[in-house]
Amino acid sequence: MKIAVLGSGMVGRTLAIDLVAQHDVTSFDASEYALELLKSKSTAVKTLKADLSAYSAYKQLLEPFDLIVTAVPGFIGYNTLEAVIEAGKNVIDISFFPEDALQLNSLAKKKNVTAIVDCGVAPGVSNLIIGRYNKIMKIESFECYVGGLPKIRKKPFEYKAPFSPIDVIEEYTRPARLKENGQIVIKPALSEIELMDFDDVGTLEAFNTDGLRSILFTMAHIPNLKEKTLRYPGHADLMIVLQKGGFFSNESIRFKQAEIIPLEYTSAVLIKEWKLQPSEEEFTVMKVIVKGNMNNTPKTIEYTMLDRFDVGTQTSSMSRTTGYTCTAMVNAFAEGLFNEIGVFPPELVGNNENCFNYILDYLKQRNVNWIKKEY
Amino acid sequence: MKIAVLGSGMVGRTLAIDLVAQHDVTSFDASEYALELLKSKSTAVKTLKADLSAYSAYKQLLEPFDLIVTAVPGFIGYNTLEAVIEAGKNVIDISFFPEDALQLNSLAKKKNVTAIVDCGVAPGVSNLIIGRYNKIMKIESFECYVGGLPKIRKKPFEYKAPFSPIDVIEEYTRPARLKENGQIVIKPALSEIELMDFDDVGTLEAFNTDGLRSILFTMAHIPNLKEKTLRYPGHADLMIVLQKGGFFSNESIRFKQAEIIPLEYTSAVLIKEWKLQPSEEEFTVMKVIVKGNMNNTPKTIEYTMLDRFDVGTQTSSMSRTTGYTCTAMVNAFAEGLFNEIGVFPPELVGNNENCFNYILDYLKQRNVNWIKKEY
Repeated sequence: MKIAVLGSGMVGRTLAIDLVAQHDVTSFDASEYALELLKSKSTAVKTLKADLSAYSAYKQLLEPFDLIVTAVPGFIGYNTLEAVIEAGKNVIDISFFPEDALQLNSLAKKKNVTAIVDCGVAPGVSNLIIGRYNKIMKIESFECYVGGLPKIRKKPFEYKAPFSPIDVIEEYTRPARLKENGQIVIKPALSEIELMDFDDVGTLEAFNTDGLRSILFTMAHIPNLKEKTLRYPGHADLMIVLQKGGFFSNESIRFKQAEIIPLEYTSAVLIKEWKLQPSEEEFTVMKVIVKGNMNNTPKTIEYTMLDRFDVGTQTSSMSRTTGYTCTAMVNAFAEGLFNEIGVFPPELVGNNENCFNYILDYLKQRNVNWIKKEY
Repeated sequence: MKIAVLGSGMVGRTLAIDLVAQHDVTSFDASEYALELLKSKSTAVKTLKADLSAYSAYKQLLEPFDLIVTAVPGFIGYNTLEAVIEAGKNVIDISFFPEDALQLNSLAKKKNVTAIVDCGVAPGVSNLIIGRYNKIMKIESFECYVGGLPKIRKKPFEYKAPFSPIDVIEEYTRPARLKENGQIVIKPALSEIELMDFDDVGTLEAFNTDGLRSILFTMAHIPNLKEKTLRYPGHADLMIVLQKGGFFSNESIRFKQAEIIPLEYTSAVLIKEWKLQPSEEEFTVMKVIVKGNMNNTPKTIEYTMLDRFDVGTQTSSMSRTTGYTCTAMVNAFAEGLFNEIGVFPPELVGNNENCFNYILDYLKQRNVNWIKKEY
């Protein structure tokens, strides 16, 4: 297939390099530097500098391609996806934008295209799992625990992010929607901190964040849904201190003739402590627990994944776990395993057993191993 | 006596009102508001608006007065004291400036004036105690624990300050000089956190801050000297987090076309949480422990003080404990109990038994009670 990858950031680069083994791949980015870095890692991927916010040019720009992969920054993600669909192209998306992708469903149907969104790890694999088991059991509860963490623990925060602190802080302040006993409830981010043990990692803490996204609506019949973020123990309490101390506030403070928003300046301060360096080892840890009844018998399905920075190729676990899920979906689509028309979050793909197994096998070949327990 | 009080802030106001019972008092300040507030509390104190940084005017301005009390902000304290001495006036100072007041000793001698500095609670009473017992015992160690705390404990910081957060943070960042086994050692501020129990208060934490000031030099023969700040437990750890997170840094960060110093902006953020409101109840707790030999017998002297906000007169404990020590010194001087020429920190006054007893009695009459234990 002829594939266009829009966006050559950390994840976009990783998935282009993976896809070029089987496809004709062209990566787009506005940044010369990002494209040069990609070329230095793979001569097979073609690159093209382009202003990806020039949506009116998409029709012509994307004309030669069979499939588009969108891996742009979240804040332009929705508009990018809309422009790709408008251009009449099938698309697999991993941009994680805040808007509701299902709003584009009727446009996708009109344009006769397939758009699969949120194709990462969480959202992504967690959605595939709930979709898969929703088909074969009566699910009572779904729990997802996920975190990306640095190998080296440096006090006080014991945390590093491959993106701006402001995006992480946004997760720490946006109220978390979850579902309890059939009701959607809203709890503060960083609430209900609990300790959990993970094999080969040790004890982490889990706390509420707003990560369920489309599942809240597509799985509205499941009475209990929650997603929690994982960090080294103590991190959430420190974030609560900064929040209560006013450092995450969106209300500007008058300071030396300027209006400065604490959240923005805090992000500028924290970047020194939080910036994940390119060769800094990190890992992704995740656990999904589905409970319910299968053939009228109580059943628990547990999937766990622990993936580490690839020292050989200097590829972050964050890129591996999200990027390879996306490329798995691309190949599942390329092989015709999924061909419905419209916009689909992964839970609506995962109900297809072949797709589900294909994606987990694909990840396993890249050493991203999802371990299943059933009891 | 005709007394001029330079500065009518919280402490300057309190001591003017106390002094006017026995003296002819005129308070000076650049702020109309500060002077109005003072007049609303005492009609007996005369007030005069004046730019106290116009040092060349001091000679004429202070000419009618027998004694000057300086209670100006620390950053202009040294220059103010120098100008008063230069004007040939005796002076009692409570401005707590960072510079070394003893530098003005030869000027004071030349001008034939008495200047007593650091006449508050700590420094202040702690200095008096070490001075007193240095005269009658061979001191092996001196320890001072002191804190001003809000009655109502509000998470996360459980702290309020009657002055700008930047001054408190300065105490949390300036390396602490102390003396151990005859050597001056420098330890980080906020280090060596320990829990201590105080009657009628409960458990507090104590940590190193740089509070010994003149004692390090005037009591150079004492092998062990330390001063620690008291807070509700957990406060110091949070300050260490902010410090390690970069929020107390003095190195500016480029932010939206401006260079912004984290420490300054942090202070602007924290003022919302830290600002002690005028009628907000607080207290001062302090313990001084002097160990050594008296008449070749091991001896420990312990002084403790717990003073609370005066609801009746709406006077903060911080003003009471510092201001009344200053007015005690003024009256001790007025009564001729101390008449040496030069610059004197309180430890050089406290070696005078009459002065020492006079000051503690004076404080007791104002219900600031120093309880002594000897064993």
